[in-house]
Amino acid sequence: VGEFDLIARYLKPLAGEGAMGLNDDAARAFGQVMTKDVLVENVHFLPTDPLGLVARKALRVNMSDLIAKGAKPSAYLLGLVWPKRLSERDFALFSSGLDAEHRDHGLQLLGGDTTSGETLVISVTMFGLDERQSPLLRSGGQPGDLLVVTGGIGAGGLGLAAAKRAPSHTDQEALPYRLPNPPFKERSFISEHAKASLDVSDGLLADAQHLANASNVDLTIQLADVPMAPGAGSSLDERLHLLGAGDDYQTLFLMDSGARETLRSAVAEGLALRVIGVASASSADGAKVQLLDEHGSQLTPDRTGWDHFA
Amino acid sequence: VGEFDLIARYLKPLAGEGAMGLNDDAARAFGQVMTKDVLVENVHFLPTDPLGLVARKALRVNMSDLIAKGAKPSAYLLGLVWPKRLSERDFALFSSGLDAEHRDHGLQLLGGDTTSGETLVISVTMFGLDERQSPLLRSGGQPGDLLVVTGGIGAGGLGLAAAKRAPSHTDQEALPYRLPNPPFKERSFISEHAKASLDVSDGLLADAQHLANASNVDLTIQLADVPMAPGAGSSLDERLHLLGAGDDYQTLFLMDSGARETLRSAVAEGLALRVIGVASASSADGAKVQLLDEHGSQLTPDRTGWDHFA
Repeated sequence: VGEFDLIARYLKPLAGEGAMGLNDDAARAFGQVMTKDVLVENVHFLPTDPLGLVARKALRVNMSDLIAKGAKPSAYLLGLVWPKRLSERDFALFSSGLDAEHRDHGLQLLGGDTTSGETLVISVTMFGLDERQSPLLRSGGQPGDLLVVTGGIGAGGLGLAAAKRAPSHTDQEALPYRLPNPPFKERSFISEHAKASLDVSDGLLADAQHLANASNVDLTIQLADVPMAPGAGSSLDERLHLLGAGDDYQTLFLMDSGARETLRSAVAEGLALRVIGVASASSADGAKVQLLDEHGSQLTPDRTGWDHFA
Repeated sequence: VGEFDLIARYLKPLAGEGAMGLNDDAARAFGQVMTKDVLVENVHFLPTDPLGLVARKALRVNMSDLIAKGAKPSAYLLGLVWPKRLSERDFALFSSGLDAEHRDHGLQLLGGDTTSGETLVISVTMFGLDERQSPLLRSGGQPGDLLVVTGGIGAGGLGLAAAKRAPSHTDQEALPYRLPNPPFKERSFISEHAKASLDVSDGLLADAQHLANASNVDLTIQLADVPMAPGAGSSLDERLHLLGAGDDYQTLFLMDSGARETLRSAVAEGLALRVIGVASASSADGAKVQLLDEHGSQLTPDRTGWDHFA
């Protein structure tokens, strides 16, 4: 039984108002958009990753969720399971990473809990301000919409491979895994123009399927249009692998095709936005994601993304 | 370096508005009182504890923080590190525990995150509604105030000993450890009458010291007046041990001595409230907690409470 089945069967019946049926990346309550992402050593980061970057990553993966909902990250609570084997200097490094994100992104620490345990776990609950008229959800996309993604896909997967290969703290190739780069600059555009969206964390194809399901549309993605992260090889196998590798923390969204010109202007001004496909009426047997090569032939990758319990 | 020193040195400088300087049990933001308590297998609960009760405990220790601040618990986010060794049936049991607390205490699940990992970790961020005019903090107590505690002290320590002795799922003696009983009934009284308060989780004496420090008063506690949990032995050694054992999840608060009659009426109506001491002007070298025996002699226990990194 996978992660999504467990949540659907046992937790969704417990969801309250504002939980969006546990179908979305963030909840809405008390006038805030809020998200909670938990990072676990050896699952979401490696014991060899520098602790300052681990702290920054923990905040950034939460900011990624909020940005994908068009919300401006503002403040957070921090739950920390801190192993006794780590030193005071480690704690200082970790804290300096938090501080760096505070300065760069205007975050504030509201409170939390620090406890001991064998494995380092970082649990962040982050709040964001929604400047939109109506909530930006995974649902809301329609046939005819453009499918847009921010940044470069595969950064997380390539960075992870580098971090495993050479666990040096200064390795630049590992940096995109250790310090993901959500679309901070693109947040306002997303907030203004997206009709449906989510953050790409499980893998582009798996997350596209989540978006398709929630919006009840088919999505057709042109592989040649997907912006690959620097360092990605050009072989089909590698590109397909990275489309299912996860850890990208970019935003995938649907927008009205009438706004294509606005998007072109935004790209000309330096925003990392790319149209990678279109939405169409969903298939009779449910919403589908199709990936096409340059000849229009359908590609079927072995793996589309990450499921923690699969 | 202990837990409290690490927080003071490295996290307090990062605290934002509403964080109460990280000196309190809960933060205040967006019109809500909010707390985040993380429970870790083998630290806050035992692998032999029934998972339905573990879920309920995770919610109750958070409710304990909110109740101690006079706030009414309303909704929460759930972060779950769920080991793959556990089964779908375990997940169902865990969820049924959440459901039981929803029914008993009107809670709603807002969202969260489920991920895998070696050790079960439950991270709850809970929100509560504050019905008071001014925030109830650890500070605010004054010389002359009465020191009051709810419930029975030592319940958690006695229950833990029983759970370790005989890990049967149906052992009634272990229940107070597995399912703490915060002062749900006493919440309105606390909200209405407390001037300064905290929840007793580290140990009565350690938590009394936190209250004394924040309110800058000395506290004198009469051991004979401390309400001990059922099953506590009458020996001095055992009582002193339980005063530092922690896991009680009761509320310790200071109230105006002029309201003593109101307190007597509340007790007559069945609320578990007990005056265990008084506040006085703090000593020249800092706020002190004194524990006195029935002859007025000062007692000095070996251990006053729990520090995760001590």
